[in-house]
Amino acid sequence: MRLATRRDGSRDGELVVVSAGHERWASARGIVPNLQAALDRWDEVAPELQRLDQDLAQGKLGEPSDFGALGAPLPRAYEWIDGSAFVQHIELVRRARGAPLPENFLTEPLMYQGGSGCLLGPYDDVPLADAGWGLDLEGEVAVVLADTPRGTSATRALEHIRLILLANDWTLRQLVPAELAKGFGFFVSKPATSFSPLALTPDELGEHFRAGRVHLPLRSQVNGRLVGDPEAGDMHFSFGELIAHAVRTRSLTAGTLLGSGTVANRDPARGVSCLVEQRTRELLASGAATTSYLKVGDRVRLEMLDPNGRSLFGCIDQAVVAG
Amino acid sequence: MRLATRRDGSRDGELVVVSAGHERWASARGIVPNLQAALDRWDEVAPELQRLDQDLAQGKLGEPSDFGALGAPLPRAYEWIDGSAFVQHIELVRRARGAPLPENFLTEPLMYQGGSGCLLGPYDDVPLADAGWGLDLEGEVAVVLADTPRGTSATRALEHIRLILLANDWTLRQLVPAELAKGFGFFVSKPATSFSPLALTPDELGEHFRAGRVHLPLRSQVNGRLVGDPEAGDMHFSFGELIAHAVRTRSLTAGTLLGSGTVANRDPARGVSCLVEQRTRELLASGAATTSYLKVGDRVRLEMLDPNGRSLFGCIDQAVVAG
Repeated sequence: MRLATRRDGSRDGELVVVSAGHERWASARGIVPNLQAALDRWDEVAPELQRLDQDLAQGKLGEPSDFGALGAPLPRAYEWIDGSAFVQHIELVRRARGAPLPENFLTEPLMYQGGSGCLLGPYDDVPLADAGWGLDLEGEVAVVLADTPRGTSATRALEHIRLILLANDWTLRQLVPAELAKGFGFFVSKPATSFSPLALTPDELGEHFRAGRVHLPLRSQVNGRLVGDPEAGDMHFSFGELIAHAVRTRSLTAGTLLGSGTVANRDPARGVSCLVEQRTRELLASGAATTSYLKVGDRVRLEMLDPNGRSLFGCIDQAVVAG
Repeated sequence: MRLATRRDGSRDGELVVVSAGHERWASARGIVPNLQAALDRWDEVAPELQRLDQDLAQGKLGEPSDFGALGAPLPRAYEWIDGSAFVQHIELVRRARGAPLPENFLTEPLMYQGGSGCLLGPYDDVPLADAGWGLDLEGEVAVVLADTPRGTSATRALEHIRLILLANDWTLRQLVPAELAKGFGFFVSKPATSFSPLALTPDELGEHFRAGRVHLPLRSQVNGRLVGDPEAGDMHFSFGELIAHAVRTRSLTAGTLLGSGTVANRDPARGVSCLVEQRTRELLASGAATTSYLKVGDRVRLEMLDPNGRSLFGCIDQAVVAG
């Protein structure tokens, strides 16, 4: 199933089931008020949503879709946890800010807790109050979890993935060094994160979702120019391993969002999912970073296409605005 | 008003209004399904809750209270943000783990994002899987926020405080150094946080809530022994300043929980709200920390009394159990 949240003036929006071709959708309001409510009692609700999806596919109901009306699938979520599963990204970004590599960075995931109360929709403007803050994209794959008890193993953890989607974990790069030096991790350097219009049940990805990884390239564009399409399947840690780390000492509730960290590959030809990596490569190659961080007026677009060129999650396509 | 959440099998529980003496309460189910829903449309709901409170005070309705049935006021919250407003605590704890003091620690609050999807009620058992993890209490004052826009000033921020309560921000002290060395802040070293049975509207504290601080001692007991009653009013940063820092680059949604950080005073006679402080004092005084972290079977009790000895928030009273 392909699920989305239509803005209707309420805090959580209205759940819609979207057709395979994305051209039509049907409201789920007769079944459940919103996506969080569906996740709260998924086993009961999912079969009803599947029937709605079948009726939509058979043309029995539904209406033309209007993606411009969509917010984040979860406009507010109980947690947004972000891993950092792409080792290449960790190595490059740490090198860029002169931070040593943690000894255990290949055996224990880096992970931070992000803000989750106000999440951006796929086409929302991204406000930038100070150009000097160094706004950067971070293209990621994310999952929406079911209730996941403390101590769940990496193997069992995959059963707790309800939905898969894309995220842009915006980062204010120039605020990072001073903030991390304080020792408590990211806070003001991470403004609201954006999510793709569609969240898919794992079966929608078929063979592309295997071993706890989405094996497809993530395409990132800045002002219409492709900056990278690295393989999202190159995660050093699988989603199962990220989840197991996240529940080592506490449980997670249904609707928790968990991200892969910035998608990155070792092959520089695949480009980047964040500008700091490009800047680091420039710095290492020529002694100077020439790529600028984002400025007011820039547009950033993220999407993931299947081998037939079909957009799986819809695109995240946002403008940076003053404010 | 004194608000609490009675467990009723639902994820969010049932909102109850508690009498001034705590001996009676009345369900708010005729007004709103739970506390989060009340916070979602507070301006509309609060006057109705106040009428319920008046009727309860006049004996027109209500029933005997049963505090054992209470969970956290917000069993799941959209964010749990914890400041560190007591400079004495920062100095001592940093000294204990050999971490330098951040240059700007007197001008910019330390703040971390905690897990908020599964919060512990005031009498819930606290599971400890490994005695070597160094379980410690962290007694705090916390606030529940209204919608708070990005960029709200410290002065205006106080208007966004809906409720005040107590928290025990449990910490696995021996997991902290390795985790902070990774640079992303606390994650597995912070298991689920516990909250007091009652959340009070600020007016309930009268003159004790002024200048964005609760000017009363926070009493912490371990196994019935008082370990400290430091003044919670000794915050270096007010709640207004903490909130302003939290919304520097993003907005917060209604129901966000924000903590003061561990209550600590410079006067050692006032004792501690966490054991690591006591251990650090011992270490500095005699070269060895003799106080142990918590073990299975220990009980920790936190409460705040007014000058007449009346418990304002009810107590957080929990046992550490194996698991």
